[in-house]
Amino acid sequence: MLANWNERLEELYDQMVEWRRDFHQHPELSFQEERTPKIITKYLESLGIEVKTGVGGRGVVGTIRGGKPGKTIAIRADFDALPIQDEKDVPYKSTVSGVMHACGHDGHTATLLGVAKVLSENCEQLNGNVVLLHQHAEEVAPGGAIAMVEDGCLENVDVVFGTHLMANAPYGTYAYRKGPIMAAADRFDIKIKGRGGHGSAPHETVDAIAIATQVVTQLQHLVSRQINPLKPAVVSVGSFHAGGASNVIADSAELTGTVRTFDPEVRDYIEKELKTIVEGICSAFHATAEVTYFRGYPAVVNHDKETDVFVEVMKKCVGEDKLIHIDPIMGSEDFGYFIKEKPGMFFFTAAGNEEIGASYPHHHPKFDFDERAMLNAGKALLSITHNYLCEQEVLEEKLVAEKA
Amino acid sequence: MLANWNERLEELYDQMVEWRRDFHQHPELSFQEERTPKIITKYLESLGIEVKTGVGGRGVVGTIRGGKPGKTIAIRADFDALPIQDEKDVPYKSTVSGVMHACGHDGHTATLLGVAKVLSENCEQLNGNVVLLHQHAEEVAPGGAIAMVEDGCLENVDVVFGTHLMANAPYGTYAYRKGPIMAAADRFDIKIKGRGGHGSAPHETVDAIAIATQVVTQLQHLVSRQINPLKPAVVSVGSFHAGGASNVIADSAELTGTVRTFDPEVRDYIEKELKTIVEGICSAFHATAEVTYFRGYPAVVNHDKETDVFVEVMKKCVGEDKLIHIDPIMGSEDFGYFIKEKPGMFFFTAAGNEEIGASYPHHHPKFDFDERAMLNAGKALLSITHNYLCEQEVLEEKLVAEKA
Amino acid sequence: MLANWNERLEELYDQMVEWRRDFHQHPELSFQEERTPKIITKYLESLGIEVKTGVGGRGVVGTIRGGKPGKTIAIRADFDALPIQDEKDVPYKSTVSGVMHACGHDGHTATLLGVAKVLSENCEQLNGNVVLLHQHAEEVAPGGAIAMVEDGCLENVDVVFGTHLMANAPYGTYAYRKGPIMAAADRFDIKIKGRGGHGSAPHETVDAIAIATQVVTQLQHLVSRQINPLKPAVVSVGSFHAGGASNVIADSAELTGTVRTFDPEVRDYIEKELKTIVEGICSAFHATAEVTYFRGYPAVVNHDKETDVFVEVMKKCVGEDKLIHIDPIMGSEDFGYFIKEKPGMFFFTAAGNEEIGASYPHHHPKFDFDERAMLNAGKALLSITHNYLCEQEVLEEKLVAEKA
Amino acid sequence: MLANWNERLEELYDQMVEWRRDFHQHPELSFQEERTPKIITKYLESLGIEVKTGVGGRGVVGTIRGGKPGKTIAIRADFDALPIQDEKDVPYKSTVSGVMHACGHDGHTATLLGVAKVLSENCEQLNGNVVLLHQHAEEVAPGGAIAMVEDGCLENVDVVFGTHLMANAPYGTYAYRKGPIMAAADRFDIKIKGRGGHGSAPHETVDAIAIATQVVTQLQHLVSRQINPLKPAVVSVGSFHAGGASNVIADSAELTGTVRTFDPEVRDYIEKELKTIVEGICSAFHATAEVTYFRGYPAVVNHDKETDVFVEVMKKCVGEDKLIHIDPIMGSEDFGYFIKEKPGMFFFTAAGNEEIGASYPHHHPKFDFDERAMLNAGKALLSITHNYLCEQEVLEEKLVAEKA
Repeated sequence: MLANWNERLEELYDQMVEWRRDFHQHPELSFQEERTPKIITKYLESLGIEVKTGVGGRGVVGTIRGGKPGKTIAIRADFDALPIQDEKDVPYKSTVSGVMHACGHDGHTATLLGVAKVLSENCEQLNGNVVLLHQHAEEVAPGGAIAMVEDGCLENVDVVFGTHLMANAPYGTYAYRKGPIMAAADRFDIKIKGRGGHGSAPHETVDAIAIATQVVTQLQHLVSRQINPLKPAVVSVGSFHAGGASNVIADSAELTGTVRTFDPEVRDYIEKELKTIVEGICSAFHATAEVTYFRGYPAVVNHDKETDVFVEVMKKCVGEDKLIHIDPIMGSEDFGYFIKEKPGMFFFTAAGNEEIGASYPHHHPKFDFDERAMLNAGKALLSITHNYLCEQEVLEEKLVAEKA
Repeated sequence: MLANWNERLEELYDQMVEWRRDFHQHPELSFQEERTPKIITKYLESLGIEVKTGVGGRGVVGTIRGGKPGKTIAIRADFDALPIQDEKDVPYKSTVSGVMHACGHDGHTATLLGVAKVLSENCEQLNGNVVLLHQHAEEVAPGGAIAMVEDGCLENVDVVFGTHLMANAPYGTYAYRKGPIMAAADRFDIKIKGRGGHGSAPHETVDAIAIATQVVTQLQHLVSRQINPLKPAVVSVGSFHAGGASNVIADSAELTGTVRTFDPEVRDYIEKELKTIVEGICSAFHATAEVTYFRGYPAVVNHDKETDVFVEVMKKCVGEDKLIHIDPIMGSEDFGYFIKEKPGMFFFTAAGNEEIGASYPHHHPKFDFDERAMLNAGKALLSITHNYLCEQEVLEEKLVAEKA
Repeated sequence: MLANWNERLEELYDQMVEWRRDFHQHPELSFQEERTPKIITKYLESLGIEVKTGVGGRGVVGTIRGGKPGKTIAIRADFDALPIQDEKDVPYKSTVSGVMHACGHDGHTATLLGVAKVLSENCEQLNGNVVLLHQHAEEVAPGGAIAMVEDGCLENVDVVFGTHLMANAPYGTYAYRKGPIMAAADRFDIKIKGRGGHGSAPHETVDAIAIATQVVTQLQHLVSRQINPLKPAVVSVGSFHAGGASNVIADSAELTGTVRTFDPEVRDYIEKELKTIVEGICSAFHATAEVTYFRGYPAVVNHDKETDVFVEVMKKCVGEDKLIHIDPIMGSEDFGYFIKEKPGMFFFTAAGNEEIGASYPHHHPKFDFDERAMLNAGKALLSITHNYLCEQEVLEEKLVAEKA
Repeated sequence: MLANWNERLEELYDQMVEWRRDFHQHPELSFQEERTPKIITKYLESLGIEVKTGVGGRGVVGTIRGGKPGKTIAIRADFDALPIQDEKDVPYKSTVSGVMHACGHDGHTATLLGVAKVLSENCEQLNGNVVLLHQHAEEVAPGGAIAMVEDGCLENVDVVFGTHLMANAPYGTYAYRKGPIMAAADRFDIKIKGRGGHGSAPHETVDAIAIATQVVTQLQHLVSRQINPLKPAVVSVGSFHAGGASNVIADSAELTGTVRTFDPEVRDYIEKELKTIVEGICSAFHATAEVTYFRGYPAVVNHDKETDVFVEVMKKCVGEDKLIHIDPIMGSEDFGYFIKEKPGMFFFTAAGNEEIGASYPHHHPKFDFDERAMLNAGKALLSITHNYLCEQEVLEEKLVAEKA
């Protein structure tokens, strides 16, 4: 049965490429998506799939109901683009100035449409339902995922899976990890308020630059002294702006930075202690500070059982040598909201290909990917779906038996 | 004789006010002065005074030759204005948008014109000559003074005096100091070059902000650990700019700052060690740096003997209670170049008056001064001139006798 | 067969306790062991086991030859004690003032003697040989392990296992981890040489304290900015000593500290960059420094395959619920030298028991353990041996089959 | 008259040398002086001078009453020694192990005894009285001066003078300064309390060394950023002690240091802000601190009028070329307590002489001075006394006349 599904997906490849290139030519910024969700909706409806639009804002949720009762698996694809000027020289180059699908969400969407087609054609074979999560606004916090979850997109869902194309690994493999796979990414803004004055009279001032430099110095202690060395964490100050004239002591200094963590306790700790450090330094010098800590996406933490299932399914589907166990990635993504709510798992589908120029990092103006990776992503999602809705019991029993 | 001179100056008061207000309404930026030196030249020539124009660029030098041989005393007044928008509400407000006499140089010039008139009328009484140094471009390094000196304006000069109106002391007094009275003011620019990268991957970067903050921290040691505590010095970082996005580690950081010193050895030391510190920190972290150190004006260091003369003259002229001995001022001024070349002395003529609104600091958009201070300044300069060219020997003998 | 071995070990329990308590009462410091290796040697010889003494200095290596050819498994137990005063109130308290088995090596040794007895009685059943590695001097770098390896103790050995009693986990379980399980632990000494002088004249000195504090500050950057956040690393300054009188600026400052890493590249990097940082800071201030970096033990990095074998064997032997997968431990141990040379694995045998007072951390003056943990450790070692020398092929095939 | 006094002093020279060498051989530590005050007392009494002993503890105060009424001048000489081992090779070397007159107080005392002899012989010529202040315990805070003042030694005194031998200037001159001549010297002790732990687990600790280094760093800001650059100040950390083992994070850190100032407001400011800085840093990291600030001696601030008198007297007495105007000295001395209470002045009498080995700094184990400097010091004190008690009015009138 799975073999047939995969064959059917291959037949749809040209259609998937067409979709992807259409999206690529008409990218839409996060929270401003209009055309893309309309196309998705129209297509899913054309397949006779139940569709809810405006989920959590601009999300589109389709539900394919199986012939028999069983579990419900959700599959997510995001569809927003980035504020980057497309610098590729290809026929399907972005037609929108300054906006570009530079992260592969066009491919995610085209893949899920193909998967939807295959599964809707074979819905009678399914013991349970498939929920298609077409998500808006992954690139900009607070993101679309949390809004879709709050809007009920995971009701009755048993497991949720998602994949991301990865152009910096050569086409053909899959990358995964149990537990944390992508980091929580937070942002902080610190405004140190001193008292400006003439550069020749520091004693009449509260030198905001001198104080802000101490803050930057002390923030190093968070990672080097205060966090468990086994728990990865990054605190980076990305910008420091203060002062104008060389001979005037700055009145205030503005710092911004990013915090990356995997462990929620470490995340909470850093938020709290960052403020404590800033306040301590400022109190030492009679300055004041405003610290704003913006929580970005949580870490993407794959569930153990669903990761085991993924590994077993993929071993059979593509062979163990195509599976790469990776270290966590310090980047972030809002898929974590889905698997904080329900069991699930997120993996990467390699999509790089130097020969065709798909060798630039994500978010690069020349980013592109090998479109055949969409087939790989789609087959993986079909295999996982097949497992849960057509043979799940067998595999679950096997895993339990092995552990015994 | 001096009494007559002073009376004559008082008669010229209305004329001095008129000149001053004319200059005030037509301020000219440093190194762009055209109208002002023309007016000065024309007036001095109308008095029959020998005039050299274009001295050191735009300076005007007049020479009043005395009836008998003797010493030559030079008196300096600067005539440039500042890039400040005049915000006063007075009839003589600046007519040039964004340019203003916010430091009193208009008053200095009017004063010296009045003094020139009195002395030229009485030149037969003089044993020696008076050189009138009308200087351009005091406000912007490298300044006009050094160029005028290099152009020979002090040739045959024996002593040189200058005064500055001081609006932050109430009209009626004079402030002076033996030795250093104003600081050398230098500027430094430091560009730290690291290697940028993503905020989540500090180990792949050389974090320019982290390094630049260490530089700022270490620069504090120059003053706190490396300079003789008895020798005043200031090293202030006035601006710190680095980075853009909060989640991107900055590639480079730019610092600018000011250095104030009185002792030339301390000044040399700071220039050298500032570079040593930056290089040391950068080498610790594989960054590189460009340090540019711009020497501004040297300290104004009053000569002992000429200061003693000033004090003796002024005691007689205005009484000891009008003389205020002050601490050195951390601000800077290019008069120092004249008294590095020849014996001389620089003093302040108080010009503040709250009642008429002359209570703003120099360089303030509402800066103004009590115009009667021009008379005080003029009388002081006449008294000093009188001493050197009409009675100097007496006073010198007296001072020598006292020391014996 | 394994069941019989385990029963036989249980019969030896009283003997093992007796041995352990004897060693406990007669502890010997690292590199000074005489009595302990003699007792081990005598006992192994009494069992008819081939013994080599003085291996790598004071190590004792016994070889039990099996009835049939096959693999050779080595098992290691260390036997040195610590310079700690025993503060327990028990009959078997240390009789040597200031020396104590505060880390459980007495238990390791007693366990291996019991295991040796069982295996030597059953040597005909073995397909292959067992090498008993009684190691001296684990507590003090450079340790006995490397010397024993260099002296050939692993020749012809195929796999090597070791276990450590762990008093801070309650008796009954085992703790393990694939890959790095214990850290590399290095030590650094930094001597900053400035130029002392009177506290009132900092400019005549090179202030060693001010400079050393900058070194400590900058060292934080190693971990916070320069090391991959996914690769655990610790750089701690443990001591800072400088100066005497409050009003004298210190001539020199001495720092010592520890570095913990798992990844050899990170270790190399820190050693190199630590020196770079110290040199950079010192050059910024005309100080000099001596940095000595002492490499301690390497990380203990368990081999994947042997860890899989351990897990499979222990699941059968004690059940999966007794196996605890742990995070790496930042402490260090010289077993790593053995498994840098040969495949192998190191695990912990829980030995805590609050009820009998075995709740103090290792190296504590009141450290003790539940002696029944020796039986658990021994059974695990017997099970592993049984697997390799009596049934290994079956398990290996199974693992290979599963991966296929 | 003065000439006769000076001649008489010269006759006493051998006696003065004898006294000085006797004191030198029998030095007594601060607050432990017994023999010295007894000898002083006995000698003054032998001259028929009124003596009070035990003044402020161990001070000796003699009063020479003049033949006519007039002013009362006090002259101070301190008589304690230092805990230094005498390393000179001279017949009059210290006979007390570890105790030495390494600062010249033996010379001060011998000088004042000689002066006392001359003045008591000529007491009829005096219009007023002379108070001889033989002070104990100058070397150790809180010092003898404040206790003697509190005990009334300055009652009815009009002016007070003192001199210190200065071995680092060649014999023959005098050094003086109007206003601050010696610094206030305070001491601070800072104990940072963190929470110790294993070097591999910084996150379980509060790292006292890391925090104390930040304190040292921030203290630099006091001088470099917070104090008027025209007001000399020094904050030096003299000792930093924390931690033991290289792999244990220190529980606490102890810093001691010295603060030197001339301006009482700056002194108060530093005391207050030093605490603010320590508290701010500690609060940033959840550490606590104890800061103890010990006020040492205040600055020695010479009074203007008495310094003018000194200069005029000495010009006549020894010639202007023997008078050296000096920068303030960052060292401290408790004479300041006397001139906080009464008008007065403190000067240095040069006493160095390389040819006879008197070229070591004060407090050096080989310190010595040219004993003829005692004559110079004595003559200066006689001249000043002569001025106040025999011709004061003349000089005062002259000074007033000059100012008019």
